[in-house]
Amino acid sequence: MPFKQYLLTPGPTPVPEQIMLAMARPIVHHRMAAFGEIFREAAAGLQWMFQTSQPVLMLAGSGTLAMEAAVVNAMKRGDKALCVVGGKFGERWRNICKAFGIEVVSLDCEWGTAIDPARVAAALDGDAKITAVFSQANESSTGVRHPVEAIAEITRARDGVINVVDAVSALGAFDLPMDRAGFDVLLTGSQKALMLPPGQAYIALSEKAWHRVEKADLPRFYADLKRERKAQANAETAYTPAVTLTVGLCEALRMLKSEGLENVFARHDRLARATRAAATALGCQLFAPTAPSPTVTSLWGPAGIDTGKIVKHLANRYGVSITGGQDAVKGKIFRIAHLGYFGPFDILTSVAALEMTLGDLGVKFERGAGTVAAEAILAEGVA
Amino acid sequence: MPFKQYLLTPGPTPVPEQIMLAMARPIVHHRMAAFGEIFREAAAGLQWMFQTSQPVLMLAGSGTLAMEAAVVNAMKRGDKALCVVGGKFGERWRNICKAFGIEVVSLDCEWGTAIDPARVAAALDGDAKITAVFSQANESSTGVRHPVEAIAEITRARDGVINVVDAVSALGAFDLPMDRAGFDVLLTGSQKALMLPPGQAYIALSEKAWHRVEKADLPRFYADLKRERKAQANAETAYTPAVTLTVGLCEALRMLKSEGLENVFARHDRLARATRAAATALGCQLFAPTAPSPTVTSLWGPAGIDTGKIVKHLANRYGVSITGGQDAVKGKIFRIAHLGYFGPFDILTSVAALEMTLGDLGVKFERGAGTVAAEAILAEGVA
Repeated sequence: MPFKQYLLTPGPTPVPEQIMLAMARPIVHHRMAAFGEIFREAAAGLQWMFQTSQPVLMLAGSGTLAMEAAVVNAMKRGDKALCVVGGKFGERWRNICKAFGIEVVSLDCEWGTAIDPARVAAALDGDAKITAVFSQANESSTGVRHPVEAIAEITRARDGVINVVDAVSALGAFDLPMDRAGFDVLLTGSQKALMLPPGQAYIALSEKAWHRVEKADLPRFYADLKRERKAQANAETAYTPAVTLTVGLCEALRMLKSEGLENVFARHDRLARATRAAATALGCQLFAPTAPSPTVTSLWGPAGIDTGKIVKHLANRYGVSITGGQDAVKGKIFRIAHLGYFGPFDILTSVAALEMTLGDLGVKFERGAGTVAAEAILAEGVA
Repeated sequence: MPFKQYLLTPGPTPVPEQIMLAMARPIVHHRMAAFGEIFREAAAGLQWMFQTSQPVLMLAGSGTLAMEAAVVNAMKRGDKALCVVGGKFGERWRNICKAFGIEVVSLDCEWGTAIDPARVAAALDGDAKITAVFSQANESSTGVRHPVEAIAEITRARDGVINVVDAVSALGAFDLPMDRAGFDVLLTGSQKALMLPPGQAYIALSEKAWHRVEKADLPRFYADLKRERKAQANAETAYTPAVTLTVGLCEALRMLKSEGLENVFARHDRLARATRAAATALGCQLFAPTAPSPTVTSLWGPAGIDTGKIVKHLANRYGVSITGGQDAVKGKIFRIAHLGYFGPFDILTSVAALEMTLGDLGVKFERGAGTVAAEAILAEGVA
């Protein structure tokens, strides 16, 4: 095994040392005053990050719990859901809805492409029983950014329809201003742009969505958001919270605030552009050229090469962990992350390791073309 | 605020430094080989701790998630639940069952007393529609140990009835041998005897309970145990796991193994006896004298004293955090913990701080009687 390991995956993402050490402090009791202060700081910081005046609720669990919470609190028996399905996480929306007896209309889009908002409008026009549109701000399995702002425009005009946005691999990496864009349900997890270990999820609802919660009739207990809202208004949680992650969250939010939201977004954009430029310079085509993700770049492998081989070689020979494709695109694509605690030299690490790997595998390309292309863009900013 | 703080509550309990530091190591990706090794070690350790040959599943969430998982996987529409309700956590069983449409027969027992198993048998005899008995091995809100082994004997003889044991504040502190006792569902959380921060829960099912899961028809997704069992058999999880807590769990299990399960149980028993002896020597009567908990001692306050005052004074003047009573016994009782990472001098800290506090509050008692009584028992063993 290579001496030094580099975790460059789109979640869990690397956790900064100062956050790990903050979380290693002695445990605080969640019903005591000291935790109340931590909780309030974290809650205010989350509102800043979600760009909302609504409370952002913290749940002990992973992103999927927040997705389930969205379904069981905002839908009721007999409702129909419109799910944008263009990857594994779109499929998850569909599976959760079905598990709770909600009929699903699937808007399938080809893996690697974003949904055309006109199809959402047409589907809603065609079926008055649809009460919610579920989508991903960023479908990380394919590296696609969906036009969730345009979907929000469409649902905003319809009283009986809300939009629900899974922003697990998106929020805090690019601009998703909840109140301004009109997202009705927006959720994320701790292990992505927030630079924390996995185990905490965050969810906020618009006024329109909270009205729906009043009429909610699907069975729920652990994911009951009304109970959480009441408890969290008093800086408590309905059930034992993930205390250490809440402490780490304060530290993460301080880091992001000191960088500034605009700069955080610009950094992710720059790292994404550098990755795309480098990979294409090495002859790897973009898997999602029309709607590339700002947080993870998905790439076709060079002709004739199983991308699983690239991923394995990177890990085994160079200690660099990236991710391959899943399901339909397994062996066909690979993905380079730039999400969370990533700086320019993490991208150069991925790119240089990719150059060395392609060389080892006998692929023909211009040596150094990747790092040169990346450096030109990374030099635009220092962060 | 006092310079040095002592967290002596029954959960979150103190976390050993070596566990905190283990969790502060660089994050591992949950789909990679290194995590598989960690996962397998943790899973095997949990089987040792649960004393079962069944898989013990890890969930990202707090104990309440595991309680919900027990209900939605082991019950089906039309089933009736028999809930032992003698405190806040018994009430939680009732509330979860109701939230999922399961009719509940409550076996109420007076707070501070344990359930008489004969009442369980009589209730089952009287209602053939009851398919499960829900109880707590330790009701931490009242400091009562329920006779869950006797309940398991009763359900074992009935094909259509399982027993479900919430052992959140119990498992790993006193003997609950799952297979030998015949518990059908046994669950706990990370922040108690396992000495971890909150955020992970553990649940195991007997063969009899797994048969029930095959017919389960309540809606579930995040808490779907069949899906988890399948994933965890391959050292993966259905959704992103609490990675750092899994790392900490390995460390905790190593510590417990090196102490030895028998010694761990003996330590908790000794600390509990010392606490009871000390508190009664100071004139505080046991709230649960007939079935005192091995993990938390609940006590009436001295006549005329609001126990909320005792708890506050301990915290504000001496930096010692213990817990008061909740709901019906708020202001009437207080609770001293001895659960998880507790040694003899943690008990002496609680006892000495209690002596000083009672003195400050003008209560009459023999000075030193508490520490003398505690020392006599604590000297029996060194751990």
